[in-house]
Amino acid sequence: MNTNNSRRNFLKTTALATLAAVNIPEIVSAAYKPAKLKKIALSNEDIILFQGDSITDMHRKRSDNDANSPAALGTSYPFLASAEMLYRYPEKKLSCYNKGVSGNKVYQLAERWQTDCLDLKPTVLSILVGVNDFWHTLVNGYTGTIKTYRDDYKALLDRTKQALPDVKLIIGEPYAVIGVKAVDDKWYPTFNEYRQAAREIADNFGAAFIPYQEVYDKAQKSAPGAYWTADGVHPTLAGAQLMAEAWLQTVKG
Amino acid sequence: MNTNNSRRNFLKTTALATLAAVNIPEIVSAAYKPAKLKKIALSNEDIILFQGDSITDMHRKRSDNDANSPAALGTSYPFLASAEMLYRYPEKKLSCYNKGVSGNKVYQLAERWQTDCLDLKPTVLSILVGVNDFWHTLVNGYTGTIKTYRDDYKALLDRTKQALPDVKLIIGEPYAVIGVKAVDDKWYPTFNEYRQAAREIADNFGAAFIPYQEVYDKAQKSAPGAYWTADGVHPTLAGAQLMAEAWLQTVKG
Repeated sequence: MNTNNSRRNFLKTTALATLAAVNIPEIVSAAYKPAKLKKIALSNEDIILFQGDSITDMHRKRSDNDANSPAALGTSYPFLASAEMLYRYPEKKLSCYNKGVSGNKVYQLAERWQTDCLDLKPTVLSILVGVNDFWHTLVNGYTGTIKTYRDDYKALLDRTKQALPDVKLIIGEPYAVIGVKAVDDKWYPTFNEYRQAAREIADNFGAAFIPYQEVYDKAQKSAPGAYWTADGVHPTLAGAQLMAEAWLQTVKG
Repeated sequence: MNTNNSRRNFLKTTALATLAAVNIPEIVSAAYKPAKLKKIALSNEDIILFQGDSITDMHRKRSDNDANSPAALGTSYPFLASAEMLYRYPEKKLSCYNKGVSGNKVYQLAERWQTDCLDLKPTVLSILVGVNDFWHTLVNGYTGTIKTYRDDYKALLDRTKQALPDVKLIIGEPYAVIGVKAVDDKWYPTFNEYRQAAREIADNFGAAFIPYQEVYDKAQKSAPGAYWTADGVHPTLAGAQLMAEAWLQTVKG
C-alpha cells in the first residue's frame, strides 16, 4: 500500500512537473520577447573560456591550467563542447579553458574575475550563473535578490567589455527541473525572474543566448527529468551532452 | 642554422610520416581483405563495457563502479561516446562502463577478465588492445610476439563467447602515429602485424571493427599528428573525440 501511495505521489509529481515544464516557457515568452537566436563565429586561435558555478565546474582539476586539458575541463558540458569543437575545427587552433567554481553566485565571479577571466584574455566567453543566486536564498540564508543578480551581472559584463571590447559573449539561461530532488514548488515563480533577467542581459550585451530551460523541458519528452539531472540542477552525463549540444548551437566555424 | 636544420629534419620526418600514413593502409588492404563495416544494433537496457589499456582507461576513477558515472568513464573516447549514446537514445536506458587499465596487454586483460568483464555481464563489449603488446617489446623487454597476441586474444574471446554467447563485440584496431614522440621507424613493419591480427580476429568473431589507424591517418590531412595524439599513441582531447566519432559509427539505435 505504501509503495502504491509512493507511486501515486510520484505520478502526481511527474504530472505536475510536465505541466510546469510545458507552461513555464510560454509564460516567459509572453512576458518577454526573446533575443533572436544569435550565433558566434569562431575565429582562428580563439581562446574560449567557460565560466560559471558547479554546473560548469564539475570536478575540473583546479591545479591544471593548460588549454584543452581533459582534466582541467571537468566532466560536464565544457569538456564535451570543447572536444567537439577541437574535433570539428582542427585548423582553427582553439584553446579551451574551464574556470567554473562550485557554489558561485555572480558576486563571487566578480571577486575572482581578474585572475580567472580577464588575465586569460578570452576571445569567446561563455557564462552560466544564476541558480545559486536564487537557490541559496532558500537553503543557506543568502539575502541577494533578483535586483542583486541583475545589477551584479550587468556590472560584471560592463567590466568585461571595458577590458576585452571585442570578446564574443555566450550567456546561458539558469534552469531547474521541477520535481527532481532539490527543485520544488518553492522555486516558483521567483526563479523564473532569474531566467528572464539572464535573457534580457544577453540581449542588452549582444550575447548569444542558450535557452537551457527549454532544452531541459523538451528533453523530458523522451526521458524523465532525473535522467538528465540527478538533483534538478546538476546534469547527469546525458544532461551534460544535452547542454553541450545546445551550447554548440551558438557557435559556427 | 641549427633551427633551419631542425626544421628541415622536421619536414623530412613529416614527409616520411605522410608517406607512411598513405601507404600503410594500402599495404594492409592488399594483404588482407577487410571485414565489411559492420554495425551493432543497440537494444534496450544494453550494458556497454569499454575494455582496453591506457587509451581506454585515461584517468578513470577506479573506485567508482556506477554505470554512466562521468568520473568512472575517464577522459577519453569511452566518456565521449557514452555521453553521445545516452543523449541520443534516452529511451534505451543504457548502462556504460569503462574498465580499461593503463599498460595492459592481452594476457593482463585475461587475468582480470572474470571481475572486470564477465561478472558485469556486458551485452556490448568494446575492446581496444595491442599497442602495448608490441610497444613493450621495444621499451621494457616484454618477450611476447605477434603469435602471443593473436593466441591470447582468440582465447580471451573464446572464453567471453562461452560465458556470454549473445554479447555484441566491437574490436578497435591498434594504431600509432609515426613521427610523433614515442613512435618511430623501429615500429615498422612489425607493428602492422598487430593491426592486421586485430582485424582478422574481429572478422573471425563477427565483431564490428573500428579502423582507428585509417581514422588517425585521415585526420592528419587537417592537423598534424601531435594535434590528435600527444605521444603518438594516447589521444589528446581532439583525438579522443575523433575516436569517439569512429566508435559511434559502429552502433545504431
